[in-house]
Amino acid sequence: MNALRMSLLAAALAAAASTLAFAATQDATEAPAKTKPMADILAASPKSDWRPLDPENTLYMELPAGRVVIELAPDFAPLHAQNIRTLVREKYFDGLAIIRSQDNYVVQWGDAEEDEPKAKPLGSAKVKLASEYTVPITWDKHFTRLPDHDGYAPEVGFSNGFPVGHDPKLGEAWLTHCYGAVGVARGTEEGTGNGSGLYAIVGNAPRQLDRNIAVVGRVVDGMGLLSAMPRGGGNMGFYEKPEQRTKINSVRLAADVPETGRSQLEVLRTDSATFQAVVEARRNRFDDFYIRPAGYIELCNVPLPVRPKTP
Amino acid sequence: MNALRMSLLAAALAAAASTLAFAATQDATEAPAKTKPMADILAASPKSDWRPLDPENTLYMELPAGRVVIELAPDFAPLHAQNIRTLVREKYFDGLAIIRSQDNYVVQWGDAEEDEPKAKPLGSAKVKLASEYTVPITWDKHFTRLPDHDGYAPEVGFSNGFPVGHDPKLGEAWLTHCYGAVGVARGTEEGTGNGSGLYAIVGNAPRQLDRNIAVVGRVVDGMGLLSAMPRGGGNMGFYEKPEQRTKINSVRLAADVPETGRSQLEVLRTDSATFQAVVEARRNRFDDFYIRPAGYIELCNVPLPVRPKTP
Repeated sequence: MNALRMSLLAAALAAAASTLAFAATQDATEAPAKTKPMADILAASPKSDWRPLDPENTLYMELPAGRVVIELAPDFAPLHAQNIRTLVREKYFDGLAIIRSQDNYVVQWGDAEEDEPKAKPLGSAKVKLASEYTVPITWDKHFTRLPDHDGYAPEVGFSNGFPVGHDPKLGEAWLTHCYGAVGVARGTEEGTGNGSGLYAIVGNAPRQLDRNIAVVGRVVDGMGLLSAMPRGGGNMGFYEKPEQRTKINSVRLAADVPETGRSQLEVLRTDSATFQAVVEARRNRFDDFYIRPAGYIELCNVPLPVRPKTP
Repeated sequence: MNALRMSLLAAALAAAASTLAFAATQDATEAPAKTKPMADILAASPKSDWRPLDPENTLYMELPAGRVVIELAPDFAPLHAQNIRTLVREKYFDGLAIIRSQDNYVVQWGDAEEDEPKAKPLGSAKVKLASEYTVPITWDKHFTRLPDHDGYAPEVGFSNGFPVGHDPKLGEAWLTHCYGAVGVARGTEEGTGNGSGLYAIVGNAPRQLDRNIAVVGRVVDGMGLLSAMPRGGGNMGFYEKPEQRTKINSVRLAADVPETGRSQLEVLRTDSATFQAVVEARRNRFDDFYIRPAGYIELCNVPLPVRPKTP
């Protein structure tokens, strides 16, 4: 166990105790120390606390207004990540569209005709996969626990840049539905998703979906292009007319794009000391603006910093 | 204490116990009963479980794309609600604009030139008011507690249709920053907001703002017009060029609009049995789609139903 894990464990114990003392911390007469701005913490971070995006797990969705960059998390949905790679490499998404924009919920893309005879063929991708709504907890080798209570999971934290839930008793781990999470659309029946329809969360984290549907990654750049899609007027936010849909010019795997055409980004490692400092600063925000620190942070309010790659 | 409050108290005690038994409920061999769809619960509700919007506390913000309806909560920010009424009645907002759209955070409107010599005068509205970040808990006469743990407040629940936090020890109550909450923009200094600049939450609930800034109400209709505003490219999502801003045609108090021009809406009473049924159905969602009920609901994930007024 490294120092960070030790420290987080200690923090978790302290947090458990401090929950009961919540009111007391609020009227403490001694003003807490001012927290450092996140920008300053990141500016002071060592280069080694950042990692590049893996080109084999990075998607570029090219929309008329620009590029959305999605990082896949194959540790949590390996079959779906592989199926999406196949679909992308066979240009399945090219010419398809954003078909749904439901306020405070999801923006979804894929084939609007997927249930019709003229549905676009999936090529060599699989139509049916195992669900992957959870994975064995032993698959998650990078978990850093968040020292705060969560209502939807016994434990939450971060794994390699993704917000995750853990249930040690059941031996389950899963990606959570935080803002920007990318999931696999499915029909009513369990196990009907295959990655040909995907959605991104654009509202308050609908964590009730956790363990009910497969999450495969998250948007790391260009999120505003999805979240600002005009809301659809149909049931569940589906667009009612084809001309209301935004066309997807293409989706490519970064590995298949020449280096000069790639988005040069790096992600803060969530098992780094810098990330821990960011979490602590956000849990107890007290600065020129914040006069009452919360003493708590909800999983999906933790920032997951991404920046242009530095030399 | 009425039956509903009794029932919620009992539920709260049960919830406290069930938190510890979270894992156990997940692998129960007996499948839970299917939950009723919210639409069915609402369709079966008595008319008396709904209330109209108070025209003296309802704002219509007319944008080029349509109307945004905001309900003010004068119980929680009476001075700000009054100041906003004054600004609206003197047509302060007419011709101003949406000046900021920051992804996963806020959309803000008001005078882009507020700090400049050519700032629009506030007329007879006040420039400075008491903060109203919290109010005495005794002012909240309509609290119905949510029987679930919350990390940001000792107690949370609903008051007359608004999601609220309570701190019984400190004797404080406040409106929370859930999706759609409307707050009073302020400068760095505490107490610098007056209602001439307002914002709506368009992302994961930034509950760390609770008790640090005044919330005055919430969007009850037309939220998608705000949340889908193109994100601003400047610092904190401010638009960099005047032509990127969306003009506000007008803001009116419903009371000043002829009956025929009013949005005919009604809001589910949050102290009603129907609302309690909605909350329970959402806490334990298990139906044709949901295979794993969460057994929990986070405050800002509780739907606050609004519908066209029925005869």
